[in-house]
Amino acid sequence: MEKGRKKILIIGGVAAGPKAAARARRCDPDAEITIVEEGSFLSYAGCGMPFYIGGTVERHEELMATPVGVIRDAAFFRSVKDIKVLTGTRAEAIDRKNKTVRVTNLATGETSALPYDKLVLATGSRPVRLPIPGADLAGVYTLGNLEEAQAIRRAVEQGARRVVIIGGGLIGLELADTLGTKAEIAIFEMMDHVLSSLLDPELSILVEKVLRGKGVQLFLGNRVERIEGNEQGAVARVVTTAGSFPADLVVIAAGVKPRVELAKEAGLELGETGAIKVNAYLQTSDPDIYAGGDCVENVHLISGRPVYTPMGSVANRHGRVIGDNVTGGRQSFPGVLGTAILKVFEMIIGRTGLTESEARRLGYHVESFICSAPDRAHFYPGSKPIIIKLVADSSTRKLLGAQILGPGDVNKRLDVMVAALSMGVTVDQLAAFDLAYAPPFSTALDPITHAANCLRNKIDGRARSINPLELKKRLSAGEELILLDVRTPAEFNEVRLPGSNVVFIPLGKLRERAAELPRDREIVTFCKLSLRGWEAQTILESLGFTNVSFFEGGIVAWPFELETGPRQK
Amino acid sequence: MEKGRKKILIIGGVAAGPKAAARARRCDPDAEITIVEEGSFLSYAGCGMPFYIGGTVERHEELMATPVGVIRDAAFFRSVKDIKVLTGTRAEAIDRKNKTVRVTNLATGETSALPYDKLVLATGSRPVRLPIPGADLAGVYTLGNLEEAQAIRRAVEQGARRVVIIGGGLIGLELADTLGTKAEIAIFEMMDHVLSSLLDPELSILVEKVLRGKGVQLFLGNRVERIEGNEQGAVARVVTTAGSFPADLVVIAAGVKPRVELAKEAGLELGETGAIKVNAYLQTSDPDIYAGGDCVENVHLISGRPVYTPMGSVANRHGRVIGDNVTGGRQSFPGVLGTAILKVFEMIIGRTGLTESEARRLGYHVESFICSAPDRAHFYPGSKPIIIKLVADSSTRKLLGAQILGPGDVNKRLDVMVAALSMGVTVDQLAAFDLAYAPPFSTALDPITHAANCLRNKIDGRARSINPLELKKRLSAGEELILLDVRTPAEFNEVRLPGSNVVFIPLGKLRERAAELPRDREIVTFCKLSLRGWEAQTILESLGFTNVSFFEGGIVAWPFELETGPRQK
Repeated sequence: MEKGRKKILIIGGVAAGPKAAARARRCDPDAEITIVEEGSFLSYAGCGMPFYIGGTVERHEELMATPVGVIRDAAFFRSVKDIKVLTGTRAEAIDRKNKTVRVTNLATGETSALPYDKLVLATGSRPVRLPIPGADLAGVYTLGNLEEAQAIRRAVEQGARRVVIIGGGLIGLELADTLGTKAEIAIFEMMDHVLSSLLDPELSILVEKVLRGKGVQLFLGNRVERIEGNEQGAVARVVTTAGSFPADLVVIAAGVKPRVELAKEAGLELGETGAIKVNAYLQTSDPDIYAGGDCVENVHLISGRPVYTPMGSVANRHGRVIGDNVTGGRQSFPGVLGTAILKVFEMIIGRTGLTESEARRLGYHVESFICSAPDRAHFYPGSKPIIIKLVADSSTRKLLGAQILGPGDVNKRLDVMVAALSMGVTVDQLAAFDLAYAPPFSTALDPITHAANCLRNKIDGRARSINPLELKKRLSAGEELILLDVRTPAEFNEVRLPGSNVVFIPLGKLRERAAELPRDREIVTFCKLSLRGWEAQTILESLGFTNVSFFEGGIVAWPFELETGPRQK
Repeated sequence: MEKGRKKILIIGGVAAGPKAAARARRCDPDAEITIVEEGSFLSYAGCGMPFYIGGTVERHEELMATPVGVIRDAAFFRSVKDIKVLTGTRAEAIDRKNKTVRVTNLATGETSALPYDKLVLATGSRPVRLPIPGADLAGVYTLGNLEEAQAIRRAVEQGARRVVIIGGGLIGLELADTLGTKAEIAIFEMMDHVLSSLLDPELSILVEKVLRGKGVQLFLGNRVERIEGNEQGAVARVVTTAGSFPADLVVIAAGVKPRVELAKEAGLELGETGAIKVNAYLQTSDPDIYAGGDCVENVHLISGRPVYTPMGSVANRHGRVIGDNVTGGRQSFPGVLGTAILKVFEMIIGRTGLTESEARRLGYHVESFICSAPDRAHFYPGSKPIIIKLVADSSTRKLLGAQILGPGDVNKRLDVMVAALSMGVTVDQLAAFDLAYAPPFSTALDPITHAANCLRNKIDGRARSINPLELKKRLSAGEELILLDVRTPAEFNEVRLPGSNVVFIPLGKLRERAAELPRDREIVTFCKLSLRGWEAQTILESLGFTNVSFFEGGIVAWPFELETGPRQK
């Protein structure tokens, strides 16, 4: 054993591992750094796989290349970074006492013991393979690695038309988006809504509308019981609680699980989520062993609770912290917000922090508001709506989370909320941000400012508003509310809420025509976005009406049925 | 005089005034609210005028309409908001003792005294009219109001070809952008660079490159001495320190000044910027008189110093705070970051907080870094570069400001920096943000994270880097530096730095070919962005080179001459 050179051994070559290695090299030019990777591909962008499958990204090599097209293979790591990489090599066991890892060369079957001073576990995750009959038929895939992505793409290119996706989460929906124009897509989701771990239900329903509008068949609250094959042993149909559906190709996108066997067998502590437990320095219960990426659990920055949020971006940030710490540094990783973003056809969907459902479960004094707004000056070409749901704790006025979606620039507002939540923002601080304004980029009061102000109005008891889902429940229960539409006649004739309890009075006429409204019934006002709805509430209250509210998000965020075209008498 | 109803009188009907009125109405349904406006247009989007002039926004009514096309005129304010609006009415003097404002109806010449309990000054700003001969010729405009915008658009539509813009600030450049395809543009700027109050010089030069590339003639460090007319009294040419230039149309875009005459004559305190001084509640030195929008000065959130930053977005936020406070509330306005964003052809340019030059003048321990990065996953179609300059105080590690530009998604990163700076972020906190990642929207480590990490490396003494302007100065002074280009051969053949001191060794070959480099000369490495340049520095240092640095931002951010096409021997 060479003396003096610190030995850094890294298990896993996809995201956190190579990043930790590269950072360690920059911090310590002398260390002996080795990466052990079971597969054949190194340092690739796993999050790009859905886009490769759909052909948006043409060649799989692009997912493994640097921005200038240099492939990050073992030779690259050797020549550029002086890092040794063993691909096709499986780590079998950690000997913590002797500080070695036993590895097997999968091609030759040869085993050896690699010594370490510092060990890094970046063993990642693997897709959940459902414990149902037929899950191992030909034509049934998960999205566990680049080889599977290649196989799925080949299958579609070779004519698989009926694609069944099991799981309506982020990956399932990204696949539906990317394959939507090439195949007939059916999604089977066990929960009542798609993206149920990312969004509150009233927003999931808006995503479901978009999917259905694009011809995707959605089966919600529906469990797949088995997958059946044809005589050649290839997938033929899925059998679910709702019946049997033909399928040429099945992708199981039911989430991922951390790969913790190595850690567990070495006696390292696992957390309550089942992933490896690490401290703020990303050390496991053995201080010479660090872990990062999809195999560890994180602390949620808002709730302070452990969460399992496997994300490529988090893995990369982990890698840097680990690279520092295995070379004598002392960096900490503060935690995550569970930020996620995806594109489903023309809709962009993002969330960060806690949803309302999560916040309620955790016992916060939750107040929320759903607000629709144009993403840039309405007079500037290309302006499109976005819908923002903010969740706050009304006792501390601190923001807890944000969900943002729509065809407009969701992306920007999501990252503004990430920055704000990371710094512990209150709703009042959020409303005061000096956000950039020019007509091509925003509105004079950015949608975030507007949403923050709406939520302040609600928390301060000034605005009385109802969540659309809550309103729908009350309507379904037969409550005799008046739904007061205060938009313009042109808007009303284009699209409107159905039902006989809808009353139409444009806002400009409301003061003079208010006498037409009964004073003994609850009135729920609304408009296209939210603002005129609230304005109507304040007008009616100033005229002595005492039981008025408005529903949040307006027609743009209404997740249920709408009536279109000129109204029939 | 009616008893009991609080009288709120507002002078100014463009941005802060109407917003204050609307908010006051929502907070107090009983108040008597009056807006006095000298012009004929109300509540219009002044920031939209350049886009109206260029025809991107077709009709000027769009700038005055709500998102659903309702014109915000006096009838609208009356019927929807129960707010009385007097257009064509000039406020002449404030009688603070009797709490009245003397106004003149400009059509009839009639004067009257309007009483107030709370007075709001939202008198705005007016464009600087240069004190040069000919500034009042026909065909010479400022962009002071919608009427002037209409006149400029008409002139261009009627054939004005040679457009001279005096002033290379935000408005001047927005005009060049919007008129660039319709006319020949020449810009005369007194300072050495365009956008000199928004950007540090090395970034201004990048904007100048774009302008020149689009055929805009730029005259920097150049003063216009007079404007000369033809025999019909219309503008014919501008005469400058650099000669005489023909012009069919001249727009003076030399900034704006706060309109403070009314306040000054009433004895209200003005601040050191010359704008009205207000406290955190936007009260003037008379507690019954509030002021907001372009006529007041703001506190800069980073420096704590008074600044004059007239912006439509700030005016709107002021309006809400004032609306609260004149109806019994006690909201404060924390201050501004001087955020600005604009589009100049394919380049988007933003800045927030302090520039490096400003920070140095204010005495901070400035450290800065310029970083180039793709705005989304490089393998995802449409990925474009952005350049981020972060400025921090190295003693506190707090960020002071950000300048961001490029063809990519500048907009998002700018508002992330606004949020971060508003909350007093350190460079370490910034690097830990759990920003959203999916290939269509970002890179696994967002450019902001990457920029923050680069700046940390520099502050921590790990990365030794040079600003491109500083490098250029040293080269111009004849220093015999070696410029080591570590890109790929394909990149090198496409575009490169000129000069005999450029040495080309691709990064992958650097370890083996390092012996070719002299050990007694200073080496400055670089690449396309920045990362391989830094990698090269660390490689050379690990090989015992002691005088190595890399220049920031790489080829993408290099503001000076480049050589293109295969290199001649």
